[in-house]
Formats: sequence, structure tokens, C-alpha cells
Amino acid sequence: MPAIAFGRFDDSFSCGSLKAYLAEFISTLIFVFAGVGSVIAYNKLTSDAALDPSGLVAVAICHGFALFVAVAIAANISGGHITVLTGILYWVAQLVGAIVACYLLKVVTGGLTIPIHSVGSGVGAVEGVVMEIIITFALVYTVYATAADPKKGSLGTIAPLAIGLIVGANIVAAGPFSGGSMNPARSFGPAVASGDFHDVWIYWVGPLIGGGLAGLIYSNVFMQHEHAPLSSDF
Amino acid sequence: MPAIAFGRFDDSFSCGSLKAYLAEFISTLIFVFAGVGSVIAYNKLTSDAALDPSGLVAVAICHGFALFVAVAIAANISGGHITVLTGILYWVAQLVGAIVACYLLKVVTGGLTIPIHSVGSGVGAVEGVVMEIIITFALVYTVYATAADPKKGSLGTIAPLAIGLIVGANIVAAGPFSGGSMNPARSFGPAVASGDFHDVWIYWVGPLIGGGLAGLIYSNVFMQHEHAPLSSDF
Amino acid sequence: MPAIAFGRFDDSFSCGSLKAYLAEFISTLIFVFAGVGSVIAYNKLTSDAALDPSGLVAVAICHGFALFVAVAIAANISGGHITVLTGILYWVAQLVGAIVACYLLKVVTGGLTIPIHSVGSGVGAVEGVVMEIIITFALVYTVYATAADPKKGSLGTIAPLAIGLIVGANIVAAGPFSGGSMNPARSFGPAVASGDFHDVWIYWVGPLIGGGLAGLIYSNVFMQHEHAPLSSDF
Amino acid sequence: MPAIAFGRFDDSFSCGSLKAYLAEFISTLIFVFAGVGSVIAYNKLTSDAALDPSGLVAVAICHGFALFVAVAIAANISGGHITVLTGILYWVAQLVGAIVACYLLKVVTGGLTIPIHSVGSGVGAVEGVVMEIIITFALVYTVYATAADPKKGSLGTIAPLAIGLIVGANIVAAGPFSGGSMNPARSFGPAVASGDFHDVWIYWVGPLIGGGLAGLIYSNVFMQHEHAPLSSDF
Repeated sequence: MPAIAFGRFDDSFSCGSLKAYLAEFISTLIFVFAGVGSVIAYNKLTSDAALDPSGLVAVAICHGFALFVAVAIAANISGGHITVLTGILYWVAQLVGAIVACYLLKVVTGGLTIPIHSVGSGVGAVEGVVMEIIITFALVYTVYATAADPKKGSLGTIAPLAIGLIVGANIVAAGPFSGGSMNPARSFGPAVASGDFHDVWIYWVGPLIGGGLAGLIYSNVFMQHEHAPLSSDF
Repeated sequence: MPAIAFGRFDDSFSCGSLKAYLAEFISTLIFVFAGVGSVIAYNKLTSDAALDPSGLVAVAICHGFALFVAVAIAANISGGHITVLTGILYWVAQLVGAIVACYLLKVVTGGLTIPIHSVGSGVGAVEGVVMEIIITFALVYTVYATAADPKKGSLGTIAPLAIGLIVGANIVAAGPFSGGSMNPARSFGPAVASGDFHDVWIYWVGPLIGGGLAGLIYSNVFMQHEHAPLSSDF
Repeated sequence: MPAIAFGRFDDSFSCGSLKAYLAEFISTLIFVFAGVGSVIAYNKLTSDAALDPSGLVAVAICHGFALFVAVAIAANISGGHITVLTGILYWVAQLVGAIVACYLLKVVTGGLTIPIHSVGSGVGAVEGVVMEIIITFALVYTVYATAADPKKGSLGTIAPLAIGLIVGANIVAAGPFSGGSMNPARSFGPAVASGDFHDVWIYWVGPLIGGGLAGLIYSNVFMQHEHAPLSSDF
Repeated sequence: MPAIAFGRFDDSFSCGSLKAYLAEFISTLIFVFAGVGSVIAYNKLTSDAALDPSGLVAVAICHGFALFVAVAIAANISGGHITVLTGILYWVAQLVGAIVACYLLKVVTGGLTIPIHSVGSGVGAVEGVVMEIIITFALVYTVYATAADPKKGSLGTIAPLAIGLIVGANIVAAGPFSGGSMNPARSFGPAVASGDFHDVWIYWVGPLIGGGLAGLIYSNVFMQHEHAPLSSDF
């Protein structure tokens, strides 16, 4: 991640940085609330029946649309110079946003079960990890390939749309296998709120490997000039 | 709402303002006609069966697509300097548009029941209000974060799209709980046309609190220069 | 339709005009082939069962996506100065495109029934006409409100998208009632190919009244400077 | 294909060209992985039941969204001057990407059957070929009509969106008949990974004829100035 530098400590706690963490918190909360909410809604409508194709469509378009929005609304605020510490604090903001979203879902649904990510029936942990590696690679490669130079201050429309829709498409494909997380925060929030951490490691290991691979390949092969991609919204 | 000022009385009845109210009336009519129509269509196709996941998808994409269009077609006409009185008249135009849409639906469906928003089975009024607060917060925060400076005269594509798709995503999540209104006009129209006002207060209280919170937070924390968001299309 | 003038006869048969008719023919063919094809596909998959909500979603998104594409691909070629005769020839090109699309569908499906537009069970002709008036008003108003000045030579992304998605949304709402045509060519093609012309008048009368009303209101109330909207792609 | 010239041999193996092949490989892999994965997911969720309308929606939106993304991420890297040899190597990169995607799907699904394209029940090979000719014509015509001059270095948003959504729409229509491939690589990958090559010729012959026709008509009738369309992503 070439644009992440060891910056001055107090940069990470500047007024602009604190606003950016709040923006990350809010956009992740909005995304996870809708995404996890769509699975709870499916479970309620079908009395917890197994996923069917129309449920898969509902969950996939909900995640795709909501992530498009989350990226679009975060884009104007975050971005710019990112230090290692700032990057970590972005992640913390996202994890907290996801956790708060799941507790809010517990409240508004009158205490229904918060569905966690776990591998489908007949799917092993290794297959789950490899699936998450591949689909997160697709997502992070898309982030790098479509996000404009953040110095321009604008992502345009195509980057948020591509980021949202690759997640929608991947969930249709991966839903019955790994669930289609591509995002540790999306999986960690439900794990915390439900207290069920089995399989949660899959959604840390897979996305970190897949996203890291995409970043390495893209920045080493395709980037002429080093510039930071939109690295904080997936 | 920092951009709303107490303007001159006659500004609210200028030729440009009257056009803007008509534009609001028409765009809300188009949105509510399609949105409420999608629920009536579902009820007709399934002989009033309970909502299922494919119906949730149908209702969600119909609202999402139609709201995108409603924002896109209103954007070129309304906007600009907004006084308190003008803001109130915008709301009146939207409420009338929603009511007319529902009466038109009664005509074209040969008198079928106009479905109102109400909380799902097993969902309390408090949960319904909190759900509407959260999802309206998401919508109005999106409006603020994506709407360009109205002085530019153009919203671009991303703002209407984000506004439409967050509503689509939130309906997938909130449909079986609060119904997913996020909009007093969307709920008030069916209440008037059906004469059934039970629960309608939920869709005034929730969206007003949620939208107000989003406006307060966004304009106080994230806005450097005060400028009016697109406040008239949700 | 203020921009349609009585131009010189030979303008309508210039090389540029002939290209524009061909472009209209092709884009209508592509739209009607996909749209009518989606209904045939549903009938095949379900052995001609009555429409259900997932079929409504399939038909609506197919029409919405295909119309977006049809408008996008026609936009770069047609447009510009339009005379009355040219306008009529555009319509002829669209009608021929729709008819050819339906005969092609007969060939590739091995002679399956070409589904025509007709009012749903329990829906009267008057209700059907009024429904088509309202939803075509929404479509044509959207065309006027989003289509940029054709002299700029570019429609942008928002106009084709809004035009496609309002049709998708309206089909979700109107599908079980009038079928949701909004377009004489879309209804006339299947009528010719199937030889079944009952109800076809509804899809001439409704769209012509609804579209005409939208054009009158928009051009008289909202247009400062007279300019031709994208009038040839719905 | 007017812009394809016989260039110098070593142009095809320049550093920029090798990057472009890798970009093609990756974007095709991402598209085919999601697209074929959506069919496998459907088969798993329904225990290999015949396709139904909600499955058709799932498969169509997955392909449409993923192809939009594939075009968007390839657009910034490939493009520019294309020689015959380079064009062939693009194709090879796409075929290899599709094959690798299918083998990866075998791994992550624990060895489930890779579904191949073949004509539907009661559909003859000739009908299948003609269907693929028509829908590929629609796709390639869309590519030509929406892709901006590649010298500008930017495709905008509308070209990838139109390319993705015409594929989504066409799959809804063609799914139960020819399957809706429009792309030799999309069909060849599953044939190789499953070892089942029956009907695969249909998805070479149909798309090549349909795409060739679109290219001939568009470039001879509609192009004033010769410029290369985005010819490498379908």
C-alpha cells in the first residue's frame, strides 16, 4: 500500500481526521445495518427457511445498493493523505460502525437473531477461505482500477457503482458457499452482537489475503504513478 | 437546516416558486404512484398473501428506481434559495402529490385497497419508530453527503442514484418490520386515500427525528461552507 | 411539441436522416426483442402459469435495462432538427423494429406464442387506458425533465438511466393491471406478430394522451427556451 | 474492424501490451467467476431444480453487474492501438481467464458440476445459433454505440453500464432458450473445466456472426471517423 506513510502522530487526531473517522463509522453503520437487516428480513418472512434464489437476490441487491451508497457518501469526506495510524483508526471506526449497526438491529427487530457469516452446508473452511480470497481480490482490484486519483477530490460515479455492484454480483455467486463477506467489518459486527465467533476467522483471513494480493498486484503492475486508492470503504 | 432563511413572503409565490411546487407535486405523484402501486400489484398477483422475498425485491426496486427518477426530474427545476414558507409549501405540494397518486391508484385498479404503512406482525410501535429513525437518518445523510452545491445548478448522477438506491436497500431490510417509509408523504397519501390513520404517526415521528438528526450532524460536523442540500425530495 | 417544425421535404430523406431511422429501427428492435422475450421466457419456465412476483421482477428489470440501453445507443445518432415528416418516419422505423423483433422471437423460440399487451383479469378497458395515460405521463415527463439540450450532442448518463428505470418501476406497478406498455410500438409489434389486435387500441390511446399531456405541461410550464426533448425513444 | 491494423510484431509483447493481457485475464476471470458461480449457486440452493424466474433474475443481474465491473476495470488499462496479433492475444487472455475461473469454482465449491451453456429443452441448435446471433448483435452494437473514442482515455460511465445491462436484459430473455452467452470465452471456460464440449460450437458461431454483423453495420453506416471501439471486453 504505497501511499500509506508513517506520518506525524497528531495528523491522525486532527479535526479533519476525526471527521473522517466519524464519516467511516456512519457509512459502515448504514451499509451493515441494511445488509445484515436484509438477512434478518428474509429470515422473518420465511420463518428461518433455508436461503432460496429470491432471497439471494434480495440480499445481494441490498448489499450492492447499500455499499454503493456507503462509498459515495464517504468519498467526499475521507481520502487524502493516510498514515499507518490513520489507516488503523479508519478500521476501528468501521468495526465500531458494524457492531453498533448489529446492536441497533437487535433493538428494532425486538431481539431477533443476528445472522453471522459462516460457510454453507457441505462447504469446508478451506473452501470458504479460498472463496473469500477470490471474491475479495475481485472487490479490491475493482477499487484500485476504478478509484480516481484522490487528489482530484472526486471519485466520480463509476467507482462507487463498480464497488457496490461487484459485491452484489459476488454475493449471488458466493452466498450459498462462504456467504460472500469480502469485508472483516461486515462479518465481525454480527459475530460480536450474536456472541457467535465460530468461522469469524475465515472472514478476516480470506479478505486480508485477497485484498492484499489485489493491492500488491495492482500497485506493482498497473500503477505508473503512486497514488492511494480508495482503501477505506470495503 | 442552515440554508433555510426567513425570506420575503412574496418569494414563495413567485412564478419560479409556483413552478417548483408543481414540479414537486408531479415528481412525488410519480414516485408514490409507482411505489404504492407495486404493493397493490403484489397483493393482486398473490391474492393478498403475506409478503415474500420476491415481493420484497419487487417493492424495493420499484421504490428505489422511482425515487431515483423523482429526484432526477425535480432537480432541474426546484432548488435554489429556500425560505421557511417556501419549504412548507414544498411539503404541501408533496403531500398533495402523494394523496392524488393514491386516489388515482384507486381509480385505475377498480377500487382495490390502498395498502398503508404499518408495523409488521410482532413489531411494536417503538421498534417501528426507531427503525424509521435509523433508515431515514441513512437517507437524509446520503442526501446531504451526495448532493452537490445547488448553486452549480446540477446534481450530477450520483446524488439521485444514491438517494434512490439507499431507499431500495433500506426497504429490503426494513420491509417486514416498519415497512420502510422514510418519508411522511409516502405514508400519508395511502392513509388519506384508505381512511386508515392507525400507525401513521410513526411515519411522521420517525422520519422527522431521523432526518433532523442527519441534518444536524451533517451540517454541523461536515459542512465547511453552508449550502443548502437537496432537502425537498424525500 | 414545439421543436417540431415543417421542414423541407428532402431533409427527411437526407443521409443523416436515413441513418437516424436505421438507428431507431435497431434500438427499438433490441428493446422489444429483450422485453417481449422476457415474457416468453417466463411463460416457458412456468409452463404459462399466471404472472407471479418474481416474474414481474424479471420482466420489469429486463424492460428497464433494455430501454436504458436503447436510449443510450440511439442518443448519439438521432436527435437534432426534427420536422413533422421526420418525426413520422421515426415512428415508422420504431414500429417496423418492434414488428421485426417479434417475428425474430417467433423464429428463435420455435414458434412459441408472442404475448400481447392486454388488461389483467378484472380490469376494465377504461382503467387500462387511464393506467397507461398516467404511467406514460410519468415516462414522457421524465424524458423532458432529464434530456439535455440536444444541441449539446450528449444526453449524459442520467437521462437514459431515468428513462429506463421509470419504465422498470412502472411495470412493477402496472404489470398486473394494464401490463405497463407506455409505448405503442412495444404493444403493436406483438399484436402484428400474433395477429391478435384486441386491446391494442388501449396502447395507442393511453400513451398518446399521457405522453401528449406530459409534453404540453412540460413545454408550456417548465421550458424557458424552446428545445426539442429526446422524443423518439419511448 | 477498421482500427485493427497489422502492427509491428514486438508491439504485441511490449510492457504495456503484457499489462493489458493481464488486465484482460483478470477482468474476464472476475466476470466468469461470478457469472458461472451464480448458476452453481442456484443449483446448490435448489438441489439442481430446473431454472425458475427468480433464478433467472439472480443469474441475469449477476452477469450484468459483473460485466459492468469487468468493463469498467479493464477500460483504464487496455485500449489504444490494436494490431491483429494483439487482438488474438487479448482473446487468448480472455479464454485463459475464463478457464481459470471455472477451475477455481471447482475448487471452492468442493467439486460441484460446472454448468455449461447448452440450448434449452425443445430448442434446436439452429434456433440457439440464431438467438445468440441476435443478442450478440445487440451487445456489440451497444459497445460500438456507447464506447467513446479510446484516444480520450476514458469510457465514461454509460458505456460499461450499457454493456453490462444489455447482457443482463438479454439473459432474462434468452436464458431458457440458448442460455444467453454472447461471449465465446464465457461458454468455453465451463466447457473446458467440465470436459463437456457438446453445443459449445453454438457459442462460437453465434457470437462471432452476431458480433461481426454489428461491427460491420456500425462501422460502415454510423462511423464518420474511424476509431476503434472497445472491442476486447465481451
